[in-house]
Parts: sequence; C-alpha cells; structure tokens
Amino acid sequence: DRPFALIAGPCQLESRDHALMLAERLARAAELAGTRFIFKASYDKANRSSLAGKRGIGMEEGLEILAAVRAEIGVPVLTDVHAPDHCAPVAEVVDVLQIPAFLCRQTDLLLAAGRTGAAINIKKGQFLAPWDMANVAEKVASTGNTRILLCERGASFGYNMLVSDMRALPIMARTGYPVVFDATHSVQLPGGQGTSSGGQREFVAPLARAAVAVGVAAVFIEAHDDPDHAPSDGPNMVPLEAMPELLRRLRALDDLVKSG
Amino acid sequence: DRPFALIAGPCQLESRDHALMLAERLARAAELAGTRFIFKASYDKANRSSLAGKRGIGMEEGLEILAAVRAEIGVPVLTDVHAPDHCAPVAEVVDVLQIPAFLCRQTDLLLAAGRTGAAINIKKGQFLAPWDMANVAEKVASTGNTRILLCERGASFGYNMLVSDMRALPIMARTGYPVVFDATHSVQLPGGQGTSSGGQREFVAPLARAAVAVGVAAVFIEAHDDPDHAPSDGPNMVPLEAMPELLRRLRALDDLVKSG
Amino acid sequence: DRPFALIAGPCQLESRDHALMLAERLARAAELAGTRFIFKASYDKANRSSLAGKRGIGMEEGLEILAAVRAEIGVPVLTDVHAPDHCAPVAEVVDVLQIPAFLCRQTDLLLAAGRTGAAINIKKGQFLAPWDMANVAEKVASTGNTRILLCERGASFGYNMLVSDMRALPIMARTGYPVVFDATHSVQLPGGQGTSSGGQREFVAPLARAAVAVGVAAVFIEAHDDPDHAPSDGPNMVPLEAMPELLRRLRALDDLVKSG
Amino acid sequence: DRPFALIAGPCQLESRDHALMLAERLARAAELAGTRFIFKASYDKANRSSLAGKRGIGMEEGLEILAAVRAEIGVPVLTDVHAPDHCAPVAEVVDVLQIPAFLCRQTDLLLAAGRTGAAINIKKGQFLAPWDMANVAEKVASTGNTRILLCERGASFGYNMLVSDMRALPIMARTGYPVVFDATHSVQLPGGQGTSSGGQREFVAPLARAAVAVGVAAVFIEAHDDPDHAPSDGPNMVPLEAMPELLRRLRALDDLVKSG
Repeated sequence: DRPFALIAGPCQLESRDHALMLAERLARAAELAGTRFIFKASYDKANRSSLAGKRGIGMEEGLEILAAVRAEIGVPVLTDVHAPDHCAPVAEVVDVLQIPAFLCRQTDLLLAAGRTGAAINIKKGQFLAPWDMANVAEKVASTGNTRILLCERGASFGYNMLVSDMRALPIMARTGYPVVFDATHSVQLPGGQGTSSGGQREFVAPLARAAVAVGVAAVFIEAHDDPDHAPSDGPNMVPLEAMPELLRRLRALDDLVKSG
Repeated sequence: DRPFALIAGPCQLESRDHALMLAERLARAAELAGTRFIFKASYDKANRSSLAGKRGIGMEEGLEILAAVRAEIGVPVLTDVHAPDHCAPVAEVVDVLQIPAFLCRQTDLLLAAGRTGAAINIKKGQFLAPWDMANVAEKVASTGNTRILLCERGASFGYNMLVSDMRALPIMARTGYPVVFDATHSVQLPGGQGTSSGGQREFVAPLARAAVAVGVAAVFIEAHDDPDHAPSDGPNMVPLEAMPELLRRLRALDDLVKSG
Repeated sequence: DRPFALIAGPCQLESRDHALMLAERLARAAELAGTRFIFKASYDKANRSSLAGKRGIGMEEGLEILAAVRAEIGVPVLTDVHAPDHCAPVAEVVDVLQIPAFLCRQTDLLLAAGRTGAAINIKKGQFLAPWDMANVAEKVASTGNTRILLCERGASFGYNMLVSDMRALPIMARTGYPVVFDATHSVQLPGGQGTSSGGQREFVAPLARAAVAVGVAAVFIEAHDDPDHAPSDGPNMVPLEAMPELLRRLRALDDLVKSG
Repeated sequence: DRPFALIAGPCQLESRDHALMLAERLARAAELAGTRFIFKASYDKANRSSLAGKRGIGMEEGLEILAAVRAEIGVPVLTDVHAPDHCAPVAEVVDVLQIPAFLCRQTDLLLAAGRTGAAINIKKGQFLAPWDMANVAEKVASTGNTRILLCERGASFGYNMLVSDMRALPIMARTGYPVVFDATHSVQLPGGQGTSSGGQREFVAPLARAAVAVGVAAVFIEAHDDPDHAPSDGPNMVPLEAMPELLRRLRALDDLVKSG
C-alpha cells in the first residue's frame, strides 16, 4: 500500500521546450506531495473526433522529446501506442506503454506491447465492464509480462457522456494488477462539441478524490499551462498551477485511506 | 462544513424491540464516530418488486415505534411517505419526511410534504439527471419550507443495475440544499433476483468513502443485525457490527476533506 | 392477431369542445385506417418537470369531458390515475385506467386499479427491465382482473434521454398480456428543456413503424391540432393532420406483419 | 429507394468448401427474396473477448477463399480490416472493406481504407452517438472516396449489453450515405459468457424487421449451418435454413415501406 503514483502531463506533445517545462514543474509538484511521478504525453492522436483535430508531432520527434524528459528531468515516461509495430521502438525509449481505450481488445497490439517487457497501462474501453478487463490483462500476461496496470477512464452512459463507476476500481483490483484512475478522460464529453470532445474540468478534482478514497495505485491527470489553448483535451485538462494543491489534498486522502 | 450526519437504520421496521435495539446501537456507533444521527426505518414498503415481498407493519404501529425510538433513544427519526394524506400525520411524529425516488416527481406529494414544515429528504429518481433536482426541490420550496435535503441513490444504467455518478453530488449542491449520499440503495441490483432486488453489500463502504471524499452533508446507510434474514434490502444492508469501524473511517475522511 | 388498436388523444384535456373535436377527428382517421380507437387524455398532470407546468383541469371536469367523448363520439376512453382512491370514481367513467410509468411499482395503486375491473394499461417505468413487468402485472392480476396491457415508453439512457429497446415488446409479450408501444413518450427528452421536457416528434413515425413491424397489440400516439402551443408534451405530439397518413402506413405494415 | 441489400455470411471463414457452400445457399436465398447479396466473412478475429477465442485462418488463405467465392458464386464480397497496411492487399480481392466498430475512430485505418477506392462499410462504435458518425465518414470522404456505408450495430447500455436505438438509422441517413443495420451484433451480449460474448438469436428477426420498417439500405445478418458449433458469434448467428423465410418477410416489409 504505497502512496499513489501520479501519471501526468499534457494530452499531446507540443514541443521539446514545452514538454521539459511541464515535466519539470509536474515533477516538482509530485515531489512536494510525496508521490512518484510518471510523465505522460502522446506523440500521435490517432483517433481524433474529426480530421480537423491536430494529430501530433509524430513518433520520431516524439520519442526524442520523451527521451529528453527522461534524461534531463530524471522521471519515467509513458506514451500510448496504436499499432503492433510501434511497440518495440517506443519501448526502447519509454517506461510504460499505454493501450488506448478504443484499442483495449486488439489482441495483436496487446501481445506486441506485452512482448516488449515494458510496463503496460491498459485503459478500460468505454464499452467494457470492469470484470471484462481480466481477459484483456490475460492477453498481455500470456507473453510472460505481468507488469500490467488497469485504468478506469469512464463508461459509456447514453450518448456523448461517460460515467465513472467507482465500483470498477475494486473490481479490477481483484485481478491483482495495480489500478489507475484517469480523472481527465472520465470527465470527457465525447463528441460533445460537434467536431471535438468537450469536458468538465470542474469534476477532475472531486472524481480524483473519490477514486483515491476508494483506493488506487495511481492517478492519471492531464495538465497544461494554458489548457484553453491546448491542441486537444483542453476542456478537461487541469491548469498546471492548480496541480500542487490538488496533489497535496489527494496525497493526504491517500495516506488516510491506506492507513486503514 | 460540519461533519456529515448519519441517516441509518433497518430497511423496514420489524418490531418495537428490534427498532429500539438497532437505534440504540447505531446511536452509540454514531456518537463514537462523532456524527449526528438520524434513525431511519420504513413502516410500509409500497413499491416492492413483487407482491410476495413483505409490505411492513403499517402506519399506526410504525409511527408508535418511531415515536418510541425518538423518546427513548433521544434521536431524530426519518421515514418515507407515499401519499399526500400521510404527510401530516407522519410529520407529527417524525423529524424528516422522505420522498421515495420513484415518487420524486409527484407534485402533490412534494407539496403535502413541504406544507408539514418538517425537513424533507428527497431521493433523486433513478431516471433523473442531477440538475433536474432543482425543479423538484423548487416544488417543496414553493410551500415556504426550505428544509430540504437532496439524496443521490443511483442512476439507471442498462437493466437491473444502477451506477453512482459522483458528479451528482456537487451538481445537486449547487441548489444550496444539503446533499445526502445513500450508499445502500446505490448498490441495489433492481429486480436482479427475479421477484426481489439483489445488491452488492461489498460496495457500500467504498462508495460511501468516495462520496465523503467528494463532500456530502449526510450519509445514508441501512444496517441490520442479521441482514441475510432481513425482510427487505438484505443483500445491500451492512451488518450492524461493521458500522462502528465504517463510521470511524468515514468520519476521518470527512474531517480531512472538510478541513481543505 | 387482430389489427393493432390505436390509443390516441391530446396529452391533457383542455376543454370539452377541444376534446370532442380531437376525438371525432381521430375516430374518423382510425376508422379510415381500419383500427379500433381508444381516446386518451389526462385530467391531471401530476408529475410535471416543474411547478410552472400546467396541472390540468381536474378530475371532476375531466371525467365529465371523458364521459361526453364516450357518449357523443361512441369510443372507449382511457385516462391515467395517480392515487388509489381515484381508481374507483375514474373507472365509473373510463374504459381503461392507465398507470403512469413513474408509478408502475406502487402496489396500492396497482391493486386499487385492478379491483375496479376496468382494463389497466401499465406503462413500463423508465427504470425497469422489460422482464420486470411480469411482477408488476402479477400485482394487478392478484385482484382477479387480468384485463392488463403492458406499455413500452422508453428506458433511461444516460441523462435526459430515453431509448426504445424493441426487444422489450416480445419480452413483455411472453407474459401473455397485450403489448402497447407508446411512440410519443419514447421520444421524450425528459427534463431536456430546463423546466419542461423536450421531444423529438420526427421520430414518432419511424419508431411506431419499428414497433408495428416487431408486432404489437396497440400503438399509443398523442396528437394535437396545434402541438407547438399545447400545454404539455408539445414537442413530441404529432400534428392531427398527419395522423390519417401515419395510421394508413402503420395499418398496412401491421397487416403484412400479422399475415406472417 | 431500391430494395435493401443483404450482407450475410459466417462470422469467420472456416474453410474454402464451407465458405462456398454458405455463399451458394445464401445467394440462392437472396435471389429468391429479390435482394442483392454481398458475402461477408472475416479471416481474422482481431479483438476476441479472450485469447482462448479462435483467431481465424489468416489473411493469405482468407483472401484466396474470398476470391473463390467471388469467382465461383459470382457475388461481391466483404471483409473487415484491422490495420492500415492490410487495406490495399485486401481491396485487391474484396468489394467492400469493413471497419470494425472498436476501430471506427482510428484515423489511419479510415484513410487507408478510403484510399483503396473500395466501398467502405463503417460499423458505428458502441461508444458513439449516431450523429458522431458524420465526422467518421468525413475522414474516409477526405480521400475522395465517398463509397461509404454507415452501419448500426448497437450502443453500450449498462454492462455486457447493447441496445439498438432505431433513431440512429434516420440520424445517420442525414449524412446522405446508405445506412446498414447489423442485426447480428446488435443482439450480442458482449463479454456475457465470461471468456466469450453471448447473444440473443431470438431477437435477430424482430430487430431486422424493425430496422427495415424504419428504412435501411442494407441488412447485415450472420448465418451458419451449425451456429451452436461455430467458432465465434454462434449465440447470435441465424441458422442457415431460417434465412429464406426471414428474407422473404423482410423483403415484403421493405417493399411496403419504400412504396410509401
């Protein structure tokens, strides 16, 4: 029952300087709160609501930036993969490969990710029950790699809305794998703005508190210095300056909950 | 930001002795945890899944027992009403009238309840959005009675299952009325056992923790000395002996959350 | 496998002349289409979204108008009841008592309705699975009255929206009771306009066709000569002048489906 | 308003002889019913519930069999693709590329499929609103290929269940692209049998009738000579011998509906 780890960063990589700045400030906030920190950022947004959404800077430049964050800030890094043949090259640079929610049932991607030996954070599909994730994890584990995290990020609830079922956290924990709560995508309003997804930033903090009170191994929060002008997920990213106080409160809750 | 109040008791009244025993033990547990306590029990289960379910001991005997609990244990009492003409006689005995979730849109019941001047705990219908409760509360408030509580008890999620949307708590709080989280009915599996409702008692504690971490004015938990043989809601009632520890943990969380 | 019956009328009674006009024109449209016709109208809207919504003209005047429709137009009439003690007086005038969806689990109301010996149309609650309606019907049948109709009117689907699950029709038909499809309330957007419910009139016809193609005993459609100025459910009522063509098409489908 | 086309075949290819037999019999049934016919089968099940599920015979052998069906039975063929680089080789053999529901937001796959110039059948994700499919179709159309079909196959409804929202058919039709109703996967119970998905074969016919009554360009039905022993989707496949009668009835409905 160690303190929760923080997985945080911008939704997508924008530039090397921007990534280093964010990683540095998030690392400091995490240190202050006494939580381990994994920097998260995407180099490719492969499933935007519409073609008009920015795709990202691409794998080559993205991996260079992630390597720089790892080397210069000294923190582990996480990024998401969308095709089996990306897993090996990405795993040479990053510590944690993330399987996107829409792709959590794609067997080849899960196997390729597992074979890298990297830690694998699997987002639960919006269309899956929490107990269905045992079969998903088993696909990765069949490669001999059991460094698996299972991540709740909201379940489909009518159209253009997700709901965070907090029962999912203990249910997924029955697998024995650490459970992550993604407070950012849980408050997404998918497709809710016509050609992009909306979000409800104001619920990130209460849902993160709820998840920590239930008990989680890690909390996933996207943060940005200027969320309203970020190229993706702006409506649900937390302003960078709000992170230290948010983490302080989550950490205190986590301590209390884990001390029984 | 006072500590949360505890609304607790058996699902339905069984006998005077049983009610007094439960009230006494729950009052002690609440005192130990430093929470105010309101005894809850129903004298009539007016909407059982099937006719085979026990209806309850009736209004006359029920009110006598509730009056006894009030007088002998010295705690306020809450019960639910199902028809407008029951509101006045029930309000002569109880402190809080509760509007059942299925009935939360019945204007006459809300007005009759409001006119008694008693506090009114309105369960949010499983079919309602949290923001829809502002109109519901306004019906009661139109009587001049603003002693209103709004209670989350789960939203319909597919068939025979509810989901607790923790966003509902801050959304309902925007009305200015205190918000209650009903941890017992939120884990109901409505109709899930053929002629009665199932439940998932194991999620009462984590969901109650989640709600307290989000921030609530009161927590509603049904408890019983022998839940597996209780005449209703057994599958989701908490064993009486588990209450002191559950309350202790919730109270510590509540303190932390409300101290900021 | 007789042709479907039509249950139609305005959402609420407005005046005697208005009711007679609507009943007369709907009866003619039904006759043209070769369907039996039951006039439907409410004298009391007991569960409006907000207090600001019009309640209706009341029981006394309402029953007079329904009696007039029955006598002068020569058609059976249906209205909804909201309290056990209304069942007997209403049943003296109307042919079919309707149990509102929110109230479909209220045992006393079901028993009182059943005891009148009138036919009982039970709306399926938005919060119920279709198989749960067997227990609901059994409550009425316990009175010895098996003149029961079970009516699908949409299931909760996220917030402020319903979905029509067409599987509900054959599932409810397994009870042996005739099944009704309410094409008007199935397209309601409950609470979707702040203090009233919105609706999607454009889907009444396709959903009614779908239900008839699956197979139903009756179709329920609210119609109005000026739906945009009706006191309730305007957004989902069908303009009166569209009814003859809608019925003609439904009747042709029904014939085809029932001829196998 | 031509008669609906039939997209039918087994869930996955089993052998050349089996595919030819099924294609031949389905072609005959379609001819009898007067509907155009597209043979559908998968060579790879890339997203089985668990690793224990059979993956399929692979692309090379699969394409040989599909080419044989095309040549020997003289019908167009459809298969699904799971990776961008599969699109071109598959499109050399098949007439229609299908985008799986879980993958309907993967931009690279949609673009690669579009660039082949083949017709593209896009399954609507279980997590998407019908109006969100306009953005999805636009991704394909951006390649200059507008030979697009949009396919309803059920929306997430709680856990382990889908619901067919018939409103989705006219909503998707607003894009101007032909709309397909997949009656087989709409009755899937995803993950509902532990390590595989369950299904409700008995609802294929009523839901197909409902969709045809609403109005569709094509109906998708998986069929098998021995569904209970099929390697995948057995619980929701229709027995081959039931197809002629099912098609006859759907065709009669379709005629009636499209004649107005």
